[in-house]
Amino acid sequence: MNTDVIGLIAGVLTSFAMMPQLIKVIRTRNADDISILTLIVLLSGLSLWVWYGIMKQDWQIILSNAFAVLVNLSLLAYCIISRK
Amino acid sequence: MNTDVIGLIAGVLTSFAMMPQLIKVIRTRNADDISILTLIVLLSGLSLWVWYGIMKQDWQIILSNAFAVLVNLSLLAYCIISRK
Repeated sequence: MNTDVIGLIAGVLTSFAMMPQLIKVIRTRNADDISILTLIVLLSGLSLWVWYGIMKQDWQIILSNAFAVLVNLSLLAYCIISRK
Repeated sequence: MNTDVIGLIAGVLTSFAMMPQLIKVIRTRNADDISILTLIVLLSGLSLWVWYGIMKQDWQIILSNAFAVLVNLSLLAYCIISRK
């Protein structure tokens, strides 16, 4: 299969992966079992992947990681708010 | 900064990101708030990233995603066992 297609599907899957988790914590209003440290480490890594993608001019890496940053930022915000 | 260094740090961060989450569910023995659908979608996406890395011969993408597959597989196994 074409490399671009593999990259596109991979990007869509890892970008949207956190959506069910986000929906789950919003519905149950419970995020106690979610590790905030995991989200912070993940966000740092994903941001660096965006930078790596820009340097390599690889739009699959840039777009999928940028979207994943947004979803994980929302999840982190919800976790912090729900624990207050 | 060198592209390889950025890719290496990004890879280490996203690979190890799920470790605190894995340790947290093992310690608390509670994984009710973890979305199994998120883990399945994430695992599919990460596996495709490994494939993409192989096709692009990019070892940062291969290694970091292969390690992330292992950590997330352990987390999924623990979630399934703890719910039984």
